Amino acid sequence: MSAESAPFVPSPSLLDHIRPQALSLPESGIVEVMNYGRGREGLIPLWAGEGDLPTPSFISEAATRSLAAGETFYTWQRGIPELRAAIAGYMHRLYGVTEDPERYYVTGSGMQSIQIALQLTLSAGEEILIPSPSWPNAAAAAEVIGARPVYVPFAFDEARGFWLDLDRLESAVTPRTRVIFINSPANPTGFVAPLDTLRGVLDIARRHGLWIVADEIYGRFFFEEGGSGLAPSFHDIMEPEDRILFVQTFSKNWAMTGWRLGWIEAHPALGPVLENLIQYSTSGVAAFMQRAGVAALERGESFVAHQIERARRGRDIVAAGLSTSNRVRFASPPGAFYMFFGVDGEADMRALALKLVDEANIGLAPGTAFGPGGENYIRMCFARGEAQISEATARLVGWLKR
Amino acid sequence: MSAESAPFVPSPSLLDHIRPQALSLPESGIVEVMNYGRGREGLIPLWAGEGDLPTPSFISEAATRSLAAGETFYTWQRGIPELRAAIAGYMHRLYGVTEDPERYYVTGSGMQSIQIALQLTLSAGEEILIPSPSWPNAAAAAEVIGARPVYVPFAFDEARGFWLDLDRLESAVTPRTRVIFINSPANPTGFVAPLDTLRGVLDIARRHGLWIVADEIYGRFFFEEGGSGLAPSFHDIMEPEDRILFVQTFSKNWAMTGWRLGWIEAHPALGPVLENLIQYSTSGVAAFMQRAGVAALERGESFVAHQIERARRGRDIVAAGLSTSNRVRFASPPGAFYMFFGVDGEADMRALALKLVDEANIGLAPGTAFGPGGENYIRMCFARGEAQISEATARLVGWLKR
Repeated sequence: MSAESAPFVPSPSLLDHIRPQALSLPESGIVEVMNYGRGREGLIPLWAGEGDLPTPSFISEAATRSLAAGETFYTWQRGIPELRAAIAGYMHRLYGVTEDPERYYVTGSGMQSIQIALQLTLSAGEEILIPSPSWPNAAAAAEVIGARPVYVPFAFDEARGFWLDLDRLESAVTPRTRVIFINSPANPTGFVAPLDTLRGVLDIARRHGLWIVADEIYGRFFFEEGGSGLAPSFHDIMEPEDRILFVQTFSKNWAMTGWRLGWIEAHPALGPVLENLIQYSTSGVAAFMQRAGVAALERGESFVAHQIERARRGRDIVAAGLSTSNRVRFASPPGAFYMFFGVDGEADMRALALKLVDEANIGLAPGTAFGPGGENYIRMCFARGEAQISEATARLVGWLKR
Repeated sequence: MSAESAPFVPSPSLLDHIRPQALSLPESGIVEVMNYGRGREGLIPLWAGEGDLPTPSFISEAATRSLAAGETFYTWQRGIPELRAAIAGYMHRLYGVTEDPERYYVTGSGMQSIQIALQLTLSAGEEILIPSPSWPNAAAAAEVIGARPVYVPFAFDEARGFWLDLDRLESAVTPRTRVIFINSPANPTGFVAPLDTLRGVLDIARRHGLWIVADEIYGRFFFEEGGSGLAPSFHDIMEPEDRILFVQTFSKNWAMTGWRLGWIEAHPALGPVLENLIQYSTSGVAAFMQRAGVAALERGESFVAHQIERARRGRDIVAAGLSTSNRVRFASPPGAFYMFFGVDGEADMRALALKLVDEANIGLAPGTAFGPGGENYIRMCFARGEAQISEATARLVGWLKR
């Protein structure tokens, strides 16, 4: 053994030596446009899934008080007891879920909840079914594992908008399939699965022994007239032993996108495994952040109602505006807070998004960022105040008519 | 396709259906003891790698100001420019690293830095070499990927303490090896790799085309008399194109364990891949947390010096105390802030840790938590004030003499 250095031979590229799955990950097509347009004077940013309201001060102040009190040490990996209890109470009030804190594990974002749910269920070489177009990060998280996302195209017609064809879903099942990822209400399509569709998905999962990862983070952004205000949920139909993992986030309801705070809901038998997966990824979430989560759940209802009402008005403004253009194809979405529309005469949606930054001073997300079936669409987030949404819609429609 | 539910057959156990790698993950042996003893009246907790000082208020207040200013939106996945510049300045001052913010990617903990470094370099079925005993989480993060940790036992003698035998390291290389994980100064052993050892590791990595993941988070906790105060680092010997990823954290230097804030340092060519891996795991870190990181780096030097001095005194107190017991085997560690010692007559270190909670009211971490070679040791963190360390040492020595 020699202590002398071997001669150093620079590699042609460090990139040749990284793991193929990491190298082949797609750059987020949303982040690309955000990085392109960030900081432009007067630009109205509707590219990301977030609104224009900062986190309400009663939430931020709960974090501030905790910080000032010195809650800066390691804490429970699974989440502080107060937050797990608050989540259990919230989910019980909303969906009638048995009020058991052991069902809930706090994570560092909805994204991390997805990562952990997939680490729990998917190995390299296996497959996950994802209705598409879809938010790209679930597929990418599967790819990081070495698993393969299998896209199941949504059906579309102008009467129903986007809908999920269960025959098409089931015919995509192979012996390597382990997971069905269901996001409803959906980003970017605005698709909301009717109860019958959820029941059909659950049947398929039971028949083939698959897991369901249920992303119902937009469950309260459901614009049906006269309903409960809640989109149909797997909670409405599942049995306790069904293999369903729910991924959740504080981002949307409480305007906490920048916080990175979420949770996983699962059968309590899975608790020790979930705690390990948290331990070996980020080892938990700051206690002072979790105090903010408690405040959001316990005192946030009127703010959430305000957010939902703004989104509903935003949707109606955008829909009214787009219908004045004869170049736009769209259906008004029943849920979530995105308009996902096509533009006649524009073949390249990534190029269109960059042009709209430069020429209309609005930031939209190209449908190319949302996987197969998204290529001919562009996404506009309408979770903002009336004035901004009206202005952005006017800029868009004006640009389309040029 | 039927909308009726298939008959529900409860599975014997949900656990039968999760991914084998997730199911076989070890429970953290540290967390087990912490969960056992948390909240005991008067217990002195020396189980975790953290001190007793809360985060300094000038750091917390930077976060508070940012929160109050409404910095609660999505931000740069890679980290805000101000923090990346502050890290670049800090690493330049400390190690003379080229002052380039593009080398640094902000993460949600040192743990997440490790996870991402391994996702970049390791696939299922491949191997990572880990000198052992070691902090267990790097091995577990490899297992989550489906890769295999290969432990290389540290050598030990009372004169040198723990040391790394390079022949033993190299003979563990197989065609499946991709990464060498080097933690120096090391948790739990206190091992500090001399420059010659680092050079030898780098030679092995170059010869076999391996990555090094360098965990130098305790680099400033180095107790050599009259030196620079910095432990030897791969920064001292590497060439720019060497395949080395550095994982870092704010936890130890700035008493920010509970925050979950860290960074990865890598060749800028790897930037886009790192940004993707962040995007698809937690999608970045709260901007207000990052403001605290800027304050720590720019105004934290006298606090860091205070922490290091306390640790040095803590080490000397524990060493003096343990040397009065004829049941204890130990060498005073040159770095990090743990005493890792054996106790004659105690065969089961997990049982010993639980007994010490119950009978001596101190919390230690069993060596069984640190992989092969740790079974006959127990770990005591000494990063605390003199009074507590003296009291804890007295309790321990008193219990040993009973």
